[in-house]
Amino acid sequence: MTSPKVERTVFIVSDSTGITAETFSHSVLSQFEEVKFEAIRLPFIDSTEKADAVARRINRCSLETGQPPLVFSTLVSPDSVELIRQSDCVFLDLFGTFVVPIEQALGMKSSHSVGRSHTGSSSKQYSQRIDAINFTLAHDDGQFIHGLEEADVILVGVSRCGKTPTSLYLAMQYAVKAANFPLIPEDFERSCLPTALLPYRRKLFGLSIDPDRLSEVRNERRPNSEYASLRQCRYEVAEAERLMRIEGIPWLSTTTKSIEEISTKVLDEIGLDRRTF
Amino acid sequence: MTSPKVERTVFIVSDSTGITAETFSHSVLSQFEEVKFEAIRLPFIDSTEKADAVARRINRCSLETGQPPLVFSTLVSPDSVELIRQSDCVFLDLFGTFVVPIEQALGMKSSHSVGRSHTGSSSKQYSQRIDAINFTLAHDDGQFIHGLEEADVILVGVSRCGKTPTSLYLAMQYAVKAANFPLIPEDFERSCLPTALLPYRRKLFGLSIDPDRLSEVRNERRPNSEYASLRQCRYEVAEAERLMRIEGIPWLSTTTKSIEEISTKVLDEIGLDRRTF
Repeated sequence: MTSPKVERTVFIVSDSTGITAETFSHSVLSQFEEVKFEAIRLPFIDSTEKADAVARRINRCSLETGQPPLVFSTLVSPDSVELIRQSDCVFLDLFGTFVVPIEQALGMKSSHSVGRSHTGSSSKQYSQRIDAINFTLAHDDGQFIHGLEEADVILVGVSRCGKTPTSLYLAMQYAVKAANFPLIPEDFERSCLPTALLPYRRKLFGLSIDPDRLSEVRNERRPNSEYASLRQCRYEVAEAERLMRIEGIPWLSTTTKSIEEISTKVLDEIGLDRRTF
Repeated sequence: MTSPKVERTVFIVSDSTGITAETFSHSVLSQFEEVKFEAIRLPFIDSTEKADAVARRINRCSLETGQPPLVFSTLVSPDSVELIRQSDCVFLDLFGTFVVPIEQALGMKSSHSVGRSHTGSSSKQYSQRIDAINFTLAHDDGQFIHGLEEADVILVGVSRCGKTPTSLYLAMQYAVKAANFPLIPEDFERSCLPTALLPYRRKLFGLSIDPDRLSEVRNERRPNSEYASLRQCRYEVAEAERLMRIEGIPWLSTTTKSIEEISTKVLDEIGLDRRTF
């Protein structure tokens, strides 16, 4: 990678957390590799007073850096939007740009209510999410085999192939009760799945990983151990993949994938993408 | 809540995970409370063949439901975009709409590369994220007091006030090493913070909760226990808040907030919002 040449300030402005605007800006700005962006997130801008302060901060930034910053906004209030729009910036109005065509398509007005995108702590969805997180924590790394009948999915794979972060992401973002269970040398010697998993064959989903990458990851944890050796990693990965093939467990390689990508593939494959609005 | 009257199908189409388009659609559609949206996420649409199949699926949906579905797209490929745009839908082109003004502002073309928004498993950012998740898991609920000097933040509060999901969210989404530590009746009797925390006073951030809500949450776990009684919850919350005030620990109430809102407030208050692109 060559070092970036241009710097540019980005403001993320929202009346709520700013997570939507942040996710979006991250996605679209990743298309400009030559620029180094410095992002300033300004959440909870829920009054015109606060919006006015943001506008002044944007103007200062423009003066100091000599170029107008990019502003990604999910502000809902028209008054606040106008204050920011008139500041010295490249204004990217995520909410306003799309709400009008959607209003036309649906034949109704939006409620224009502020800070609605997250589900507060008293709803059913919230409880489901917390239940899933608790379930996943209790069923991480095969530590607890009771209650597996409640699992939506059970991830299996060799130690350090990405099971834990994927399980937690599924629980946190999709309220999926995701257990995970390691496949260990003892299983390979018996050439058989862990006994505790046999009743739940249809809930299993495998993660695998390139042995070289696995060896790197394990070496960070336990440098120069037998556990981290390339020989051992090759053996475990080959055996785990063989076992998954024999047992007919669907699986994917995590080697070059982000936690988001792995989780999306898992949801896709098990048909669990059930988020509703 | 009155039951929703209108139903509408929403497609989320992306060449990558679709998480950006999903987050965005969720945010903007939450402004239309009278409509029940059914979302179909179609990730990894990374060829014109797949885009063509999506266009046909959209047309079928339009025929079957009698109304054109809403389509939120973060597709980058112009050919794929055209295929979907020409199908029978309300096309909301997140990427295309904003990339042009950004190109103009930056005076350069975007790379138009597909599936770039997530950080794959070989980068430094990825390792930091995994390290944070592992740290947070090891330091959940005060179970491990060694290594607290590495924590970016230590959340404190009574049992079941939201510390664990907030810690995990901070680790997962922001690579923040977030430990958490319960405040228990023993601490209140001594009128003193847990001894293990004394060296890290400046890293502490408190979560509190309305006693009625706490009692509800605890009753789900341990129905009709002393632990879940309103009397006990009132006592613990009052004492925890008193302790936090005496010790000068900043804190907030989680009662009506989502995990995202709590996490954003914590980042904001501790000045740890350091995400860079």
